Amino acid sequence: MTYHHALFDFSLLQTLVEVLATLAFALSGLLEAARKRLDLVGVCVVAGLTAFGGGTLRDILLDRRPFFWVQHASWLWILLALCTVAMLTLRARHFELTERAVSWPDALGLGLFSAAGTRIALDMQMPAIVAVLMGVITAVFGGVLRDIVCNEIPSAFRDHRPYAACAFIGTWMLVLADTLNAPDWIGLTAAASTTVVLRGLALWTGYSLPAWNPGPPADR
Amino acid sequence: MTYHHALFDFSLLQTLVEVLATLAFALSGLLEAARKRLDLVGVCVVAGLTAFGGGTLRDILLDRRPFFWVQHASWLWILLALCTVAMLTLRARHFELTERAVSWPDALGLGLFSAAGTRIALDMQMPAIVAVLMGVITAVFGGVLRDIVCNEIPSAFRDHRPYAACAFIGTWMLVLADTLNAPDWIGLTAAASTTVVLRGLALWTGYSLPAWNPGPPADR
Amino acid sequence: MTYHHALFDFSLLQTLVEVLATLAFALSGLLEAARKRLDLVGVCVVAGLTAFGGGTLRDILLDRRPFFWVQHASWLWILLALCTVAMLTLRARHFELTERAVSWPDALGLGLFSAAGTRIALDMQMPAIVAVLMGVITAVFGGVLRDIVCNEIPSAFRDHRPYAACAFIGTWMLVLADTLNAPDWIGLTAAASTTVVLRGLALWTGYSLPAWNPGPPADR
Repeated sequence: MTYHHALFDFSLLQTLVEVLATLAFALSGLLEAARKRLDLVGVCVVAGLTAFGGGTLRDILLDRRPFFWVQHASWLWILLALCTVAMLTLRARHFELTERAVSWPDALGLGLFSAAGTRIALDMQMPAIVAVLMGVITAVFGGVLRDIVCNEIPSAFRDHRPYAACAFIGTWMLVLADTLNAPDWIGLTAAASTTVVLRGLALWTGYSLPAWNPGPPADR
Repeated sequence: MTYHHALFDFSLLQTLVEVLATLAFALSGLLEAARKRLDLVGVCVVAGLTAFGGGTLRDILLDRRPFFWVQHASWLWILLALCTVAMLTLRARHFELTERAVSWPDALGLGLFSAAGTRIALDMQMPAIVAVLMGVITAVFGGVLRDIVCNEIPSAFRDHRPYAACAFIGTWMLVLADTLNAPDWIGLTAAASTTVVLRGLALWTGYSLPAWNPGPPADR
Repeated sequence: MTYHHALFDFSLLQTLVEVLATLAFALSGLLEAARKRLDLVGVCVVAGLTAFGGGTLRDILLDRRPFFWVQHASWLWILLALCTVAMLTLRARHFELTERAVSWPDALGLGLFSAAGTRIALDMQMPAIVAVLMGVITAVFGGVLRDIVCNEIPSAFRDHRPYAACAFIGTWMLVLADTLNAPDWIGLTAAASTTVVLRGLALWTGYSLPAWNPGPPADR
């Protein structure tokens, strides 16, 4: 969501996906905050961190300003409203449903935001592997910061389900398209859809990442 | 404390409040570090992070340099001295007393630093909601970083006692004064005192923030 | 490792030490990630954070770009390869051995990277205490970020074994040499070797930092 030139031409579709995905990210923060029984302040901060933390971290690393949420400050109001409404209306029995409903727009966000982050880094002449890393950070580190604040080991690092890995593979499509001098929209579409399809497959098949081979000494 | 042009005119009073409040922030880090039985290095880092972390994070987000503790590097020596003396002299029975003694200058710091942070952001043409957020970050994120390093969910996000919320409301006074073209010192005084009074009321009445309505599935 | 002009003249030796030390830092992240049973993504991120996090944080604070791992992006490939190979080959019985083997190149890294970080900050006209702090951050905060992500209180802050403290003392040699107008390589060598010797002594004698005097109320 931290990406905002009209890079795609089909901009209405893109905006729709962006809004959906940002809401999905925010909701995933909100659910985690609720599980930890945070108060209103904590819920808002964690939801905001999940939605905008990845892009903000990328912009700090790349030394870019202004942040998305500074340029589009109305998003902060939307977030505040979302959190307040959720605290008033979400009941325990809605949680599982929300969680499942969120996983699909979340996959769209993974694809869109990682491709956008990589695009930005490539435009700044970053080396390919750094650009890919920036894409992954954009899409994944919101959730990582959410888990750190909620005092958990980030689930992206330990649940053995392909999430960052999908974005890592997908964003290489963009680098490839760039090397071949393909137009921007082709690379972005290829990257985003590769990531989304891979993530979709992972969700659908329950495929899991290789674990540490023979098991190291456990610690927890 | 990360704010240092003579914005208030009554600058001696302001400096005094700043010093008191910075010490209160540092002490709250020191107490937490002691409870976690950190060593000298940990105590110094956590005390410093609590005192200067919020303003530093704000300056990173706003891309401002130098940091307060670079411009006023003698504070780093004061901190080092404070931690060493505390480790030599503070006994277990002093802890509760220190904690209570700290909560009032801490409230002053909440008011002063949040108003100062918002002022800085407004001067950089940030949108109102972003400026308010920057003020809250200045005053609150030192404690948040302290809790993250000490492996706790930040108490500002979960103790249901109004802290960040007071600063959130107070700093709007500054935005309001700005909109009305009131002189700087009126806005700053209004913002700081609103925050301090709200925080004082919260400490005094034990008022608590609304909890998640019907209780979500617990996780911890 | 985030430091890369030919400041030392004996540059082959220096490069060798840098490579060894960076690998040692990465391995210490890798071992921690394994103990927490992270997946491939987590292992790579934690290893990378341990190796490059300290220098990156210093560069963010000093507002320097590009980062070491952007300028030398091949290190990201090396890290990826290291993690993959380790996950395929490291067995439980290798862990203790690796851990002990790592502690010596890690001490070299502590000396080299803290001296280099201090040098960079001094060149940017930072006050002495800030330059020393930047040196310590360069060498120590990779491990701190590793522990935060792995949901532990940073061991550098609580194990009472001198680590950051050695770098703190050592880097003052550099400041001293600068004050005396000694040539760069003398200050760097004095700082790095003081730190390494102090750390070596600490490892060898098992000396421990003073604990909180009478014991504060325990919390954990």
